[in-house]
Amino acid sequence: MNKTLVFRYLSKMTLAGSLIFLLPAAVSLFYGEYNAAFSFVVVGAGLAVLSLPMMFSKPKTNDMYARESLVIVAILWIVFPIAGALPFVISGEIPRFIDALFESISGFTTTGSTILTDVESLSHGMLFWRSFTHWIGGMGILVLALAVFPSSKDSMYLMRAECPGPQVGKLVPKGKNTAVYMYSIYGVLTVVTVILLCAGGMSMFDSVCHAMGTAGTGGFGIKNAGVAFYDSAYIDGVITVMMLLFGVNFNIFYLLLIRRFKDVFKNLELRVYIIIFAVATLFIGANIFSIYGAAGKSLRYAAFQVASVMTTTGFATADFNLWPSFSQTILVALMFIGASAGSTGGGFKVQRLIIVFKNTGKYFKKLLHPKSVNLVTSEDKAMDTDTVHGVHSYLGIYIFLIMVSTLIISLDNKDFTTTFTSVVSCFNNIGPGIGGVGPMENFSFFSDFSKIVLSMDMLLGRLECLPMIILFVPSAWKKKF
Amino acid sequence: MNKTLVFRYLSKMTLAGSLIFLLPAAVSLFYGEYNAAFSFVVVGAGLAVLSLPMMFSKPKTNDMYARESLVIVAILWIVFPIAGALPFVISGEIPRFIDALFESISGFTTTGSTILTDVESLSHGMLFWRSFTHWIGGMGILVLALAVFPSSKDSMYLMRAECPGPQVGKLVPKGKNTAVYMYSIYGVLTVVTVILLCAGGMSMFDSVCHAMGTAGTGGFGIKNAGVAFYDSAYIDGVITVMMLLFGVNFNIFYLLLIRRFKDVFKNLELRVYIIIFAVATLFIGANIFSIYGAAGKSLRYAAFQVASVMTTTGFATADFNLWPSFSQTILVALMFIGASAGSTGGGFKVQRLIIVFKNTGKYFKKLLHPKSVNLVTSEDKAMDTDTVHGVHSYLGIYIFLIMVSTLIISLDNKDFTTTFTSVVSCFNNIGPGIGGVGPMENFSFFSDFSKIVLSMDMLLGRLECLPMIILFVPSAWKKKF
Repeated sequence: MNKTLVFRYLSKMTLAGSLIFLLPAAVSLFYGEYNAAFSFVVVGAGLAVLSLPMMFSKPKTNDMYARESLVIVAILWIVFPIAGALPFVISGEIPRFIDALFESISGFTTTGSTILTDVESLSHGMLFWRSFTHWIGGMGILVLALAVFPSSKDSMYLMRAECPGPQVGKLVPKGKNTAVYMYSIYGVLTVVTVILLCAGGMSMFDSVCHAMGTAGTGGFGIKNAGVAFYDSAYIDGVITVMMLLFGVNFNIFYLLLIRRFKDVFKNLELRVYIIIFAVATLFIGANIFSIYGAAGKSLRYAAFQVASVMTTTGFATADFNLWPSFSQTILVALMFIGASAGSTGGGFKVQRLIIVFKNTGKYFKKLLHPKSVNLVTSEDKAMDTDTVHGVHSYLGIYIFLIMVSTLIISLDNKDFTTTFTSVVSCFNNIGPGIGGVGPMENFSFFSDFSKIVLSMDMLLGRLECLPMIILFVPSAWKKKF
Repeated sequence: MNKTLVFRYLSKMTLAGSLIFLLPAAVSLFYGEYNAAFSFVVVGAGLAVLSLPMMFSKPKTNDMYARESLVIVAILWIVFPIAGALPFVISGEIPRFIDALFESISGFTTTGSTILTDVESLSHGMLFWRSFTHWIGGMGILVLALAVFPSSKDSMYLMRAECPGPQVGKLVPKGKNTAVYMYSIYGVLTVVTVILLCAGGMSMFDSVCHAMGTAGTGGFGIKNAGVAFYDSAYIDGVITVMMLLFGVNFNIFYLLLIRRFKDVFKNLELRVYIIIFAVATLFIGANIFSIYGAAGKSLRYAAFQVASVMTTTGFATADFNLWPSFSQTILVALMFIGASAGSTGGGFKVQRLIIVFKNTGKYFKKLLHPKSVNLVTSEDKAMDTDTVHGVHSYLGIYIFLIMVSTLIISLDNKDFTTTFTSVVSCFNNIGPGIGGVGPMENFSFFSDFSKIVLSMDMLLGRLECLPMIILFVPSAWKKKF
């Protein structure tokens, strides 16, 4: 482990990150919320001071390997959520640190689960901050830094550590260019969302907050009733479409930009993603028809909720806790699947699902036709064993962590549905679950211990485990590795 | 597909199977239940007649491959449960065919879920028959035939199709000898259970029924209150120990017989199996202490329930629906894990779990130490990629089928816990679930459609999918394959 290099990177990132706090401070000032503004400035200044001593350490070599980048990402993703929790505590708007930390981790990991029972009591600055953490966390803290300071030759390592997932068919130029291009598309789409929402009569502040929550596939609302507050088919439609877009692999947008439409149509993950959305929407729409009485309304609520859950955003326009069991079960299944690889969404990812099922299919085929040669193919390229192996290994740890977390959370003695879906929801960075953690409920009733476990699940899910695991592997810290 | 050979085998098995019905007929006669006796004789005679025309077909070649044996097993496992359901219908004791079929499949697959609301209203003959199907289904219908008529050179293919699972470390002589040796151990252990239960004051009839239910890891009770009816620490203890033994890989018993104790101690699956049992028992025992007030009683109930669920038997001495959420969640986790490979128990199997986690561990290790060579090893033998691949493929289809089944069952609009655990319980051949399908409840309230789906889950789980899947693969039926 090249510790000096790690420290140097961390200090750079922390210094850059301290600037992030200026934006919510400005919003607070604009609304005359001096208390909130002060707390943001204090934390930002603190981060800046903290990073200074580290700036002077000079690494002997600049050799950066996978483990260095993983450690950097892991530590950043612990430091930032803690820093992000402090303004809540300092301003007194969320007085308990555990609660504030849960809220902050939920924000950065784009989960969107909240411990607030009355979100409308927060100041504008804090509401903006919550949604802003979604926006930063969605594409990545590090990726942002790389986009702003595109100096490093190690960018690709760092990006891969923060944006994992099965990377199939790399299309875009590497390193710093990738970060810039990703944030450009991300920014443009976010601005488009703001404009579209404003056009529907939503206020500027509300539009910005919802656009950031949509872009990061986060899901923090700024009204107690969530998106249902606006009760507008237009707004529901805009958010549905934008959530779906942010759940698409960003390579697709790049392909569209360089006019390689054929590759877009040939993309299997995109097709499966759209099919899952369409089928789930139709099934739920038909299933909830008896509740809403009109086909249009049923489909509108169904489409919104399916898009919200499968992209792991977590906004709600209806209390699906009251929907029939079939619709709820579809939503739980979607929670496991998640969004596309290379998007801002979380979950197991459609791409991985395709690999697992293709592989299983080929295995059974091989058992029946022992003579044929069957390679698991993804997008017409023979897929290497390492990728398949990686997906299976992730599936193993995914199941294991959900199992262990569910066991721990069950100590709070809530019913099985609440316990299980709260873990599934947090680990996949969705937000609401079913039962006690339904879309109109919140996570405030959990014990502090459970809140910490759920926060860890959010981090593990967001970073897909590896960076967090490496922190606890002693041999990773040795000089010679 | 060598169809004539398949027909010939099927007819042989059907003829042999018709003899099975003589035993419950005799029991019925003994208790003077002529109606029940008649129904068994009719079905047995019908099976025998049905098998005659097929006897005269002569296969051109005797070439038997994996697909022939899979088809034979699949068809047998459809024919036998249907035949097994008929006595219930003919005698009028379970008048509806769908219910009788559910009960029969639940019996043969050693699931133990019942649609009966009052099991004590059945005749002795029918109660015996239910438990007897557990005993036959536990070790296998085909394996029984192979043990009785040890003529075939194709035994190993057939056995493997009926008793799948990751076969690691084959130790026993192959083919017919294996079937004889397995049924011998099975028979001896069953007789030991009967004797031990009788010694505890249980009547002969009750002892035989419970011993067969324990041996097959089935779980059908003959009292409405289940094993709790006897309320005896001795009987609970005997059944706990025997369930655990029947959940062990039968190779272990063989190793003990040939005095290779060292290999037994070195067996990783056995150690993990025991550790899971011990840890789960201690956790649940501590968790339910406040309900029962005494450490002894808590541990007794905990040990019984843990052994019952992890061996996929499904007996109950306590209504764990009333236990705290933590204990219930442990039981649900155990449902997924299941018993040891090569035992009469079902589920995903401890051996597979070990392979999945070892593999995941090695993968992460490799990511961190790219230079090291890491083969997944099981019991100190380098494990071939095919086994690991097979386990992962099974995991894929396992998750997929549970997901799809849960979606279908949710159309019945029961709560999520009931829906989910009923599928998990049936697919893993356990018996009870949590909520509406708890240990003191039954499956009678499900729609006919759901009963059929759950029955299919039981069959898929028992045969580990492949034999059932091949029936629907058109190319498997072609002459040239």
